[in-house]
Amino acid sequence: MDDCIFCKIIKGEIPSYKIYEDEKTYAFLDISCDSYGHTLVIPKKHCTNVLDCEKEYLEAVINTVRLISKHYVDDCGFEGVNVLNASGEAAQQSVFHLHFHIIPRKRDDGLDTWALKDKFELDLGKIVSELAIR
Amino acid sequence: MDDCIFCKIIKGEIPSYKIYEDEKTYAFLDISCDSYGHTLVIPKKHCTNVLDCEKEYLEAVINTVRLISKHYVDDCGFEGVNVLNASGEAAQQSVFHLHFHIIPRKRDDGLDTWALKDKFELDLGKIVSELAIR
Repeated sequence: MDDCIFCKIIKGEIPSYKIYEDEKTYAFLDISCDSYGHTLVIPKKHCTNVLDCEKEYLEAVINTVRLISKHYVDDCGFEGVNVLNASGEAAQQSVFHLHFHIIPRKRDDGLDTWALKDKFELDLGKIVSELAIR
Repeated sequence: MDDCIFCKIIKGEIPSYKIYEDEKTYAFLDISCDSYGHTLVIPKKHCTNVLDCEKEYLEAVINTVRLISKHYVDDCGFEGVNVLNASGEAAQQSVFHLHFHIIPRKRDDGLDTWALKDKFELDLGKIVSELAIR
């Protein structure tokens, strides 16, 4: 897409700190810099998010997420990763080209990636009857 | 694995609120109930997390994540989803069978799934030289 910042990064029209690239995916450091090594993995073919991504590109993206995550743990001294995605403005998505965040983690790094602290008293039996795929 | 709670759920030895199931994946409501519709998607073959999951199962899991996400948005009145994963104890993983969380979202639902509020002043050029895959 002409006006998509991530498409421009893929095309090299905007510089980026590239971590990895293959035929279908591109990975680079997130300049918002929420942590050391904060990385974005995106498909080279534009789509908005998980909801409209073609199967082969979604699979390629998750395989690249795994490849980079293993690299960070096996080769770079990290001990784990968080993989995070927002699909839709209602889900706090801000750039509308599918991206998975990788947050590389170490014990005692002081980070917290789980913002959902409130617990809800919900009727799970009722919810499953409303949401399950039959 | 004999002592894995999610393997027991897959085998039906522990009850669950099932949302969806196919040959390779199983999805159910998270009883921790961080939000309405909080769902977990897991592979039927045990693995610890993204780091050791076989390609075909990781692809199956992400395809099920998409299928359920689309169902929640297309059929259930949600407007987006967050997809979240913790791989490794250092990344706040607590059950050691790969699982992706789906948090279905609506505008003004009052949720926040982005805990990383601090911004770091980091030398991205130095970081990319340390982390990039050559």
